[in-house]
This record gives sequence, C-alpha cells and structure tokens, in this order.
Amino acid sequence: MSYTLPENIVDPVKLDRLAEVAVKVGLRLQEGQDLVITAPVCALPLVRLIAKHAYQAGAGLVTPFFSDDQIALARYQHANDASFDQAADWLYEGMAKAYSKNAARLAIAADNPLLLSSQDAGKVSRANRANSKAYQPALEKIANFDINWNIISYPNAEWAALMFPDASPEDATRQLADAIFAASRVDVEDPVAAWEAHNAALKERTTYLNAKNYHSLHFKGPGTDLTVGLADGHEWMGGASVAKNGIICNPNIPTEEVFTTPHALRVNGHVSSTKPLSHQGTLIDNISVRFENGRIVEAKASRGEEVLNKVLDTDEGARHLGEVALVPHSSPISKSGLLFYNTLFDENAASHIALGQCYSKCFVDGANLTPEQVKAKGGNSSLIHIDWMIGSDQIDVDGVNADGSHEPLMRKGEWAY
Amino acid sequence: MSYTLPENIVDPVKLDRLAEVAVKVGLRLQEGQDLVITAPVCALPLVRLIAKHAYQAGAGLVTPFFSDDQIALARYQHANDASFDQAADWLYEGMAKAYSKNAARLAIAADNPLLLSSQDAGKVSRANRANSKAYQPALEKIANFDINWNIISYPNAEWAALMFPDASPEDATRQLADAIFAASRVDVEDPVAAWEAHNAALKERTTYLNAKNYHSLHFKGPGTDLTVGLADGHEWMGGASVAKNGIICNPNIPTEEVFTTPHALRVNGHVSSTKPLSHQGTLIDNISVRFENGRIVEAKASRGEEVLNKVLDTDEGARHLGEVALVPHSSPISKSGLLFYNTLFDENAASHIALGQCYSKCFVDGANLTPEQVKAKGGNSSLIHIDWMIGSDQIDVDGVNADGSHEPLMRKGEWAY
Repeated sequence: MSYTLPENIVDPVKLDRLAEVAVKVGLRLQEGQDLVITAPVCALPLVRLIAKHAYQAGAGLVTPFFSDDQIALARYQHANDASFDQAADWLYEGMAKAYSKNAARLAIAADNPLLLSSQDAGKVSRANRANSKAYQPALEKIANFDINWNIISYPNAEWAALMFPDASPEDATRQLADAIFAASRVDVEDPVAAWEAHNAALKERTTYLNAKNYHSLHFKGPGTDLTVGLADGHEWMGGASVAKNGIICNPNIPTEEVFTTPHALRVNGHVSSTKPLSHQGTLIDNISVRFENGRIVEAKASRGEEVLNKVLDTDEGARHLGEVALVPHSSPISKSGLLFYNTLFDENAASHIALGQCYSKCFVDGANLTPEQVKAKGGNSSLIHIDWMIGSDQIDVDGVNADGSHEPLMRKGEWAY
Repeated sequence: MSYTLPENIVDPVKLDRLAEVAVKVGLRLQEGQDLVITAPVCALPLVRLIAKHAYQAGAGLVTPFFSDDQIALARYQHANDASFDQAADWLYEGMAKAYSKNAARLAIAADNPLLLSSQDAGKVSRANRANSKAYQPALEKIANFDINWNIISYPNAEWAALMFPDASPEDATRQLADAIFAASRVDVEDPVAAWEAHNAALKERTTYLNAKNYHSLHFKGPGTDLTVGLADGHEWMGGASVAKNGIICNPNIPTEEVFTTPHALRVNGHVSSTKPLSHQGTLIDNISVRFENGRIVEAKASRGEEVLNKVLDTDEGARHLGEVALVPHSSPISKSGLLFYNTLFDENAASHIALGQCYSKCFVDGANLTPEQVKAKGGNSSLIHIDWMIGSDQIDVDGVNADGSHEPLMRKGEWAY
C-alpha cells in the first residue's frame, strides 16, 4: 500500500498547463459556476491545480470526489456477497441536483486498466450494473449535454507499467505523463491558443462534411470493404460543441475525431480492426466482422473472440453501429505509436466505428428529438457503446452521394479532399 | 505541495488496531450497514484499513469523502468574494438521505489547526456559516443520534509541527501518532477489551450523576465562578451509548468525559478558559465570558477575540450553552501534558462547556422528544456546537440540589464524592 507520487516525476509546468486547459478549454468554466470533480486520489496534484485555475476563473465552489484503487479492491477481497448489489444512489442523486443547478463536471481518467481483471467476473458485473443504475440520474445530464463537462487524464503507476513494461516505475510514469501532455496539446508554449487552432481545424472538417450530407461512407483497405450508411439528418461533430446551458466546451481532451451517427440498418460488407481493443481488462485483437443490412452476422478475433461474442450478445443493438468517426493517420496520438489501453486516447489514433448506442446530439436539432424520432432516422440504441479502430495508413475512405457517386475523403489514412 | 506520508512513519500494527477499534467499538458496524467516511486525504492509509475492517464486518458499501488542505486554501487564495457564501447543499442532502437509510458515519479528524489562521476572518466566517447551514440536514441526524457514528483521529504533519515544534517533521508525526494511539487506547494488546473496561468505568459515573439529578453545577476557581443550571429531565452520558437505530456505539475516540445538557436560560456568573481553543484554523486563547440568565453578555479573549465574537454572532443560540462535561484532571490525555489544538482530544483533558446546539439524547427518553419539548426543558438550539475547556487542577465542582444544598463532585480537578 503506497501512494503514487507523480508530482515528483511529472513536469510541473506542463501539469499546470493541463489544469489550465481543462478549466479554460475543456470546461470553459463561467464566473460563479460550481465545479464537481471526480478523480482517483493519485491525481491529487492535478486536482489541486484545477482547483486553483477554477477559482481564478471565478468558480463558486469546487467539490472534488476522490476514489481509491485499494479501497475498491478491499471490497472485492473482504465484502459479503450482498455488497455487490449496492451503490451510492444518494450521492449520484446529489450530483444530478448539482448539475441541474448548472454545476460543471470534470472527470479525471487515470484508471489501472487491469484493476479488477483478476476479480470474480460476476461480482464485477453486478457492482457495475448497480452503479450504472444508481448513476443514471447524473449520467443523463452529462450524456444529454445539459451542462459543460470535460474528461482529462493523469498518469497512474499501474497504467504506466502496462504501457511501458520494460521501464522502471518512475520512468514509465514519466513517459505516460509526457504522452498525455503531448496528446492533450499542452507541450506547447500557449496551449489555449493551440486548442483554438485545433478546434477551428476540426470545425472546418465538420462544416465540409455537413455541407456534403453524404448518404454513406465507403472504407476500403486490407481486410476491409465496408459501406456505412449515414443516418437521415445526421450531423458531424468534433472538437468544441455547445452544451444546453449555452457554454461552448471541449468534452474530451484529447480529441482528434470528427464523428456522426450511422444508419443502424444500412451497413454492409466486411471490416478488420487495425488496433487491439482493451475491453474490461481483456484484449481483443484482429477483429474481423461481416455486416448485412446493418447487423453483424459473423465475428472473429485472433484473441478474445469469446469476450467479443459476449459483447455482441448484450442486446440486439450491440450488433449494430452507433457511431462512425474519421481520424487522420497523422494524428499526434497515432504518430506516438502507443497503445494506451484507454478509449479516451486510443479512439483518437485511428478512424473507428462504435457498436451500440448512438449520440442523439449527432443529428440536426438533435437536442429536440424524441428517442422514437432518433430511431426512425436510423439511430441505434443499446446498453453498450464500444469503439474499435478500423483506420490505418492503408485505408481509403470515400463519401458516397445518394446518386451513388463517390468522392474521395481520405487516401492512405490522410484527408484527401 | 506534497503528500504527508505517515504510512512510512506510523506504527502499522497500532494503525490497524485503530481502524479495528473504529469499526468494532466506535461504530459497532452491523452486517449490511453502509458506511460514509469523511477524511482528509492525508489519512488515506487509515481509511484503507477502515474499509478493510468495515467490509470484514459485513458492510454494504463504504463511501469515503476526502478533503484536502491545499484545495481548501486555493479557495481563499483565488476565489471571487461571492464564493464564500457557497456550500455543497446537494452533497449534504445526499448524506442526510444515506443516514435516513441507516448508513453509519465515520469522521477522521486530522486538521491542521492553523490552516485558515492567516485568511480573512470575514471570509472564513461566511464560508463556515454557509457550510453549517447546508450541513444542517445531515448534522441533525448525527446530533440526534439517529445512527451509529464515530470520530477518530490521524496524524497530519502540520498538526504535528504545531504540537512538537522542535522535532523533525518525521519525529513530530511519529510522536503525534503515538499520542493518538495512547489516547485512543490502542497501545495495548487487546484494545477492544480495554474499551469495554473503560466504558464500564464511565457508566459508573453517569449512573451516580443520574441518580443525583442535580439542579445545577457550580464551578469555582481562578477567574471562574459559574453556576450552570441543568436542563429539566437531563441525562448524563459518557462512553458507549445507544443510537436511535438500536446500535450501541462510542461516538468519540478518545473519550474521557461524562456530559449532559445545561438549561439554556439558567447559567450565571463568569468563567475563564483553561486551554486555548482551536476553532476552524484560528487559536482563541484566554477566553473570559460573563453569563446572565443563560446568555453570554460579555466576551473577551487575549487572542482571536474577533473570531470569538463572530462565532457568538452566528445566531442567538450561539450565546447559550448546549453541553456541560466533567473530566478529571488525571485523565490520560491531561496527564500527557500535550495540548492537541483539537477538541476531540483537548475536551478530554479538562471539564468543559459548549456553546450552541444541545444533544437531545442527553435527556431522559431523549429519543422521543420533539424539538419543541427539548426547548421547553431548557435545551438550546444553534447552528454551532463549540466546546471549550474550563477545568484544571485548580477548579472545584459542586452538585447543587433544588433546595440549594451543595455536594462536592470534584476537588482540585479530581472526582471527590
């Protein structure tokens, strides 16, 4: 039992910039706004800096909630069976109340990807289900984008050891910190300006794609020949976007993707994954699936095939797509060559598709659509939303118009229009 | 900015015993009971051990809330003026809900007594007032003893430096840890048995005092000539007591006091403090106040007088007493000769009185009294409850009967009946 002590390892200037970017770009925190932070206790040095920047920006009250891996494990090691159906519903209801009073929300992702991998899978799944159910009132307000929110990341020694198994714990943590800083664009003198430029570049892409209003996308490359129909009235999003409280924020840091909603019934052909997928402590590699009319009718993987098939059996929506995203092969995260075992990073290294639930915000006037209207336009629904990478420097992507004509979008993984 | 690292300094066997005593004696946590913990982040090693013992005792879910001195200071250093009227009402309402569902509550006290001493007194007072008001729904359930609860302590480097200014930070922390372990009676082989014996000794005192049913107490010594009327139907308590949920627990560890409810309108005379009071980051020393018909009409202090007067202005109840407690001068904490700058310890080194809210449990059949009935019997109500020490080896205490006759209770600070 020990603290991780990254404050002695992590570059303090870049860490302060990350905190500044979280407050000024990620949240665009407004004067008088309260802030709720969830973070692992190892991220304390970053939370302290975020509190400083938040109060400097005029925050009302900053309320941090710290979790701890050892306390989480103590439950699996010592608790009675009945414990695994419990969740802190009173806490999540409280958070939901804070969000309805316009508190902003910042999450720091620094999970050990393998924390629960050797625990009883049934208990893990019951605890997750109980927690998801209790969390629903708060999650709804985040998922519906009622308020400005942001996720950023912080190095954790166990996570670093997984990514850099040959390095010493200190070196591994330092390398992970540097990778997070680079991906989060805080390794430059003026990170806020860098984010403005990046948001503008992503905005150009979404403006172009929305004007084109393609009927579908066509992905072609080794092991892949896939047509992804786009939902009726789909809207491309990327980078900064407007929350319902009127604040323009960057929910994910890093972010490199532009993304929209596919049509759940108009996906055909076959596709191969280009990076391993880390799902609940298991690696799934060399995925290869075949779609017929939007449904996955055949699925293989060289590793983790059983877990993949369990995922696909979650519900009917798990066999259909809920998101398609384009990311150039030259994105900084892709160029790092690192596998982060964390979707916040890995989904920004390559074009990808997601099984499961779609985002209603990825429709024109999405904020005002009912679930029935979303479905009628081709939006998929499911309990899951799992991204996996299908882009590489060997993949071409075309935009396909309603009349069947093709226009080049990406060639060898790079933008080509 | 650094972590305190007491887990490398503090005796791990005694620390584990402290966690065990908190769960088995302090809370007497029941199978299936949830547990809410509030703790400074420096107490993480103790919180981890408490989580282990709680789950071993059959806890449902353990939910810790960590506070951090640096984040608290960031607010005073950087926040807008309006921030100091904010509080996390949604969080305290959530805690109140957890307690109404029978969650137990453990607080770890490890505050730096001087944390806020150089901050603006007006802002400190406004922030405390906003927080007390927001905390009220949760505090009520603790103060009314609806559930089993416990406070224990943990060393903090800044606190230790204040107590042992000539020692190195490591030595000071080790000495504070040893003082906490001794006061908490975990420096013996079987601390659970030691607590059973101690609870029995306190029970003898309360049984005697309850049989006497005095009309008032009279304190006399240097700077003190004070008559404290006791509330109608008051009941003396001390050591273990029964919460309304039926669980026999030890709310305070350590505890050496026997205590009851004074009559809010029948306190007369003057009294001087015998130890400095550390109140939310400020030291208040050499307090001297005069009561007329229960109300403080004059208050002085050689240090912190401004803060004292702000406290008294919180509400009308802040000028009246809510508790009177007797502690022999030979108590182990008193004999240690240490000033802890922490009420949990210092109130167990000397007889004391408390400004503000009374404990409804300190009435015969208190669990069934309405707030109106408590008030009619002389019970005080306020947003605050602040203990300060008036006992020493120079103070005599008499029990005064309704007919005006006096009986000796303490002489030169020791039990004398």
